[in-house]
Amino acid sequence: MTPMLSDEQKQEIAASRADWAETRRAVSPGAEALMHEAKPVLGSGFVRLIDYMGGDAAIVQGARVSYGKGTRSVSDDRGLIRYLMRNRHTSPFELAVAKFHVRAPIFVTRQWFRHRTASINEYSARYSVLDREFYIPAPESIAEQSVSNKQGRGAALTAEQAQRVLDILRDDAARCYDHYLEMLNADEDGAPLDPSRPGLARELARINLPVNVMTQFYWQINLWNLLHFLKLRADPHAQYEIRVYADAMLAMVEQWAPLTFEAFKDYMQDAVLLSGPALRALRRVLSGEAVDLESAGLSKRESAELREALPELAARAPG
Amino acid sequence: MTPMLSDEQKQEIAASRADWAETRRAVSPGAEALMHEAKPVLGSGFVRLIDYMGGDAAIVQGARVSYGKGTRSVSDDRGLIRYLMRNRHTSPFELAVAKFHVRAPIFVTRQWFRHRTASINEYSARYSVLDREFYIPAPESIAEQSVSNKQGRGAALTAEQAQRVLDILRDDAARCYDHYLEMLNADEDGAPLDPSRPGLARELARINLPVNVMTQFYWQINLWNLLHFLKLRADPHAQYEIRVYADAMLAMVEQWAPLTFEAFKDYMQDAVLLSGPALRALRRVLSGEAVDLESAGLSKRESAELREALPELAARAPG
Amino acid sequence: MTPMLSDEQKQEIAASRADWAETRRAVSPGAEALMHEAKPVLGSGFVRLIDYMGGDAAIVQGARVSYGKGTRSVSDDRGLIRYLMRNRHTSPFELAVAKFHVRAPIFVTRQWFRHRTASINEYSARYSVLDREFYIPAPESIAEQSVSNKQGRGAALTAEQAQRVLDILRDDAARCYDHYLEMLNADEDGAPLDPSRPGLARELARINLPVNVMTQFYWQINLWNLLHFLKLRADPHAQYEIRVYADAMLAMVEQWAPLTFEAFKDYMQDAVLLSGPALRALRRVLSGEAVDLESAGLSKRESAELREALPELAARAPG
Amino acid sequence: MTPMLSDEQKQEIAASRADWAETRRAVSPGAEALMHEAKPVLGSGFVRLIDYMGGDAAIVQGARVSYGKGTRSVSDDRGLIRYLMRNRHTSPFELAVAKFHVRAPIFVTRQWFRHRTASINEYSARYSVLDREFYIPAPESIAEQSVSNKQGRGAALTAEQAQRVLDILRDDAARCYDHYLEMLNADEDGAPLDPSRPGLARELARINLPVNVMTQFYWQINLWNLLHFLKLRADPHAQYEIRVYADAMLAMVEQWAPLTFEAFKDYMQDAVLLSGPALRALRRVLSGEAVDLESAGLSKRESAELREALPELAARAPG
Repeated sequence: MTPMLSDEQKQEIAASRADWAETRRAVSPGAEALMHEAKPVLGSGFVRLIDYMGGDAAIVQGARVSYGKGTRSVSDDRGLIRYLMRNRHTSPFELAVAKFHVRAPIFVTRQWFRHRTASINEYSARYSVLDREFYIPAPESIAEQSVSNKQGRGAALTAEQAQRVLDILRDDAARCYDHYLEMLNADEDGAPLDPSRPGLARELARINLPVNVMTQFYWQINLWNLLHFLKLRADPHAQYEIRVYADAMLAMVEQWAPLTFEAFKDYMQDAVLLSGPALRALRRVLSGEAVDLESAGLSKRESAELREALPELAARAPG
Repeated sequence: MTPMLSDEQKQEIAASRADWAETRRAVSPGAEALMHEAKPVLGSGFVRLIDYMGGDAAIVQGARVSYGKGTRSVSDDRGLIRYLMRNRHTSPFELAVAKFHVRAPIFVTRQWFRHRTASINEYSARYSVLDREFYIPAPESIAEQSVSNKQGRGAALTAEQAQRVLDILRDDAARCYDHYLEMLNADEDGAPLDPSRPGLARELARINLPVNVMTQFYWQINLWNLLHFLKLRADPHAQYEIRVYADAMLAMVEQWAPLTFEAFKDYMQDAVLLSGPALRALRRVLSGEAVDLESAGLSKRESAELREALPELAARAPG
Repeated sequence: MTPMLSDEQKQEIAASRADWAETRRAVSPGAEALMHEAKPVLGSGFVRLIDYMGGDAAIVQGARVSYGKGTRSVSDDRGLIRYLMRNRHTSPFELAVAKFHVRAPIFVTRQWFRHRTASINEYSARYSVLDREFYIPAPESIAEQSVSNKQGRGAALTAEQAQRVLDILRDDAARCYDHYLEMLNADEDGAPLDPSRPGLARELARINLPVNVMTQFYWQINLWNLLHFLKLRADPHAQYEIRVYADAMLAMVEQWAPLTFEAFKDYMQDAVLLSGPALRALRRVLSGEAVDLESAGLSKRESAELREALPELAARAPG
Repeated sequence: MTPMLSDEQKQEIAASRADWAETRRAVSPGAEALMHEAKPVLGSGFVRLIDYMGGDAAIVQGARVSYGKGTRSVSDDRGLIRYLMRNRHTSPFELAVAKFHVRAPIFVTRQWFRHRTASINEYSARYSVLDREFYIPAPESIAEQSVSNKQGRGAALTAEQAQRVLDILRDDAARCYDHYLEMLNADEDGAPLDPSRPGLARELARINLPVNVMTQFYWQINLWNLLHFLKLRADPHAQYEIRVYADAMLAMVEQWAPLTFEAFKDYMQDAVLLSGPALRALRRVLSGEAVDLESAGLSKRESAELREALPELAARAPG
């Protein structure tokens, strides 16, 4: 496998990290510690924080402008951030911004870019030749189609079945990429192979590449929209290959804005939405009644999820 | 080549077109004539208008609300629409909305979905098996990399070179798709091939497919954002494979909202932006001076484009 | 009080309602019944549906495109819409669009327009003269500042105190408006009062008007963003004067898209978010433990709200 | 007039400016020099830069990621930024972000907040009491309604007429504010005037205030959207009272990102859009023909604007 970063890139990162300057802006020590470092994801992929603005302090300051003299009574920063998060007062969280540099397979970016509230600068395969980098899953990630979840994975395949999958993915990627270069009449740096004949236009040659080829992009997003993305993508229902990026970014949020991270965990990530029917059923359970959830108006799946969130219900509201 | 539409789809479209109902809403006769029909694009791709709201009349009505009694003086609908377009008063154009159903290759959707102001519902390859449909360019579209334009095409390849490209694209697509089905252990309808073994999860198997595989989606956008998209994508600098979709939609706009289409053509599509330096150079030319554009502050490319827009300049401002 | 609609406006509405046309688009019978009618709000204010696109059927159709052949198993439209709403699969709901015509006081529009995902065409006081229309609260709405809720109302004022408020609001509005016309040197239709002297520019004269002056606007929004707006603004914590508009629009959604309305009620409006700490406390209660909510990590306000949502908790988790 | 800043605020600003920290982020020396300082606008209003991210260097870096190895040929940063601006490659400009703190009259914020792409945290008059601060125009800004421009100003009023306007604006603002405090039963700091009676809810009392009352807010926006705002609002057609804010922010952009500012000036602010008909007319003029612009398809206003942009046309294309 190609190493995640070339020596040249490693030197650039080291140089950026060594480059300190003075600023009058608010600084987050946790974010400064992260700056520029590449966190490996999916083998040759990575995510790294390359710029940021604001943090817990900026959020508090923005909220205090909104509430004016009225906030004097709100005790402390942690309490205010938790209050804002719990009540989905989103605008102060929009005042913090992060910029990431990411390398990921195209099929992952297709899910990623459906979030429309970020700014994206992606490597263009019309301008430049793509690297010979493909995502090939680790054997333990190669799993069968789930029966219960139409868009999920079930048990791992056997070693033999997994090996066949790996062989297919590797061979097809290699052949498609070789043909890509042949059509381009170029090597990976774009230099012509046979100067006596023309190469196919880059914008056409790339249509032969499979969606597990790696691309890279800058991704800039405000903290509120980032948390919304992480809520959906650092979730067990998200596809594994995007979830690992979300997990890596969530760990960065924890360092950058620790109070916000804690409030996110309590009020978004670990929170459970009780529907009207679920709430009414729960009230009956709490009054001592035995309740059949499905006849109380919950769908089969909602009932199952409620019993998963509150396992103690099983005794009182059996499925 | 697979036919663009199955018999079942043709019947559905015919049934939809036969289904008329009464409405109190504003109706555009041109849009009604288009409704549901599939316009073929790129072989097995298509675009069809499946719903719309408003049109020229809604735009005029929205503008008159903004200007209130003050618009009484503005003569007629055509004049008002041209005034709005010329002065980029965009909000009345946002009041008209179109919904399209599109089939296009993945590499085209990657450019398409960078426009963040639309609502998208795309076929999910996590839920369902993709069809064996790939975009293979027509021989005359197979062109060499442009030297002058880093992201464009130059002359067509020779017949022999084009044939080699076609062979590669067809063979790699067929092999990748066969392997896709083998890994899924399913046929194109999702039925198992060998019931005794599990299939790979759909979300993983699809990573073997090249970006010229066809997908489909609903795309809903307001008229202003649609015109902005068409300005960029029905432009000679856009990649041919997305431009043909833009051209098809632009022809639909002409039928749906003819006054807006005409204003778009005059004030957006055919319009040319003169920079400050270009304007100052032009004024000198108009006073009878001979002007060297590049020493007047225009870049090489800007000078060339200005001479292309105003060929009569050549005599007075030679390159 | 000025009547809500002039005779001319009433005739225009009657004419619009009498104007039926044939369409190939999906039609919602409930929305057709509503079209153009003005629902009075806050005295001389109103809200009326003046165009729409889609409805329950369009949402189902959009979802089935996304899930492809995979949705064949999902039983019925109602079940699918409830599934989408419960899991916040928002994009199919974006495919339905409504356009409203609204008259409301400026201070209400200031809250309204903070929702950034709609298209707005508002009456411009730079172009035209504003009407002599002000929102004056009904006596029973005139309430003291709440002590517990820094942004809410408490008990009604006494009749005498309320009368003083009404006198102030009426007198100041009348005086400011008289001065507005005097500065404009115009009557309410914009005709000059004294042709021998110039009038102050409209864009300046209007700065003398209080924020309870009435304005009007077209507001177009997709159904998902509308539901998000209604969740926040048809809520007891919203200011009364915007809540009555939200209530009126919510009743229209019920007629337009009844399945979506029902799912909204169960999964958004009546739903309660249980935080991680609340969930853990509830699990302990369900196992039979007595729990002190505040020492379990819930803030004072969160504890109170949890006991309000689940009154049966009081016996087991006393405050 | 109340001084623009209280002594307490001045001390806070001085303290912020004295507070330097080390960062690994890119720093703009020009922006650092501006940080926190309040630039007075409209008397007691102001605008100040309170945070920023990126600048010319971040824009160049983002563009080089998009174009990959392909950009090696593009000579220098200035050339690249001008190329991006001229071709409206907007995404690299989205990578720079500014946060401002603004005090402005409500009628100005109503125009300001129609730009939907920013994050706003505004002082809430539901939570807190508004200050006794009103915008009263300088006598030389008090002008008559323009006849040619339905939304503009013409000549200044006479001193006597202007004095009458000032008297009205001052008296009505003072009376409305006095009544506001009386209804609140509070002084400007929110302390009760008569502890024996309740005050009207803040959310209701404020409806008596005219739209020239001052509010304040944080406003955060990426550089591309900021330039779009400045193109529209630092324009002679914008209302004077918002234009002065735009002018102040544009001067800040010049210090923060000088290469971008220069490109903005040449390719956006000073640029003129030639419509298709105007272009065709100009080509005929350049070939030596005398052209009547209006019979060549230009509207009266478009002809006048073209002659204003190219005064040398007058001899060849008389009106």
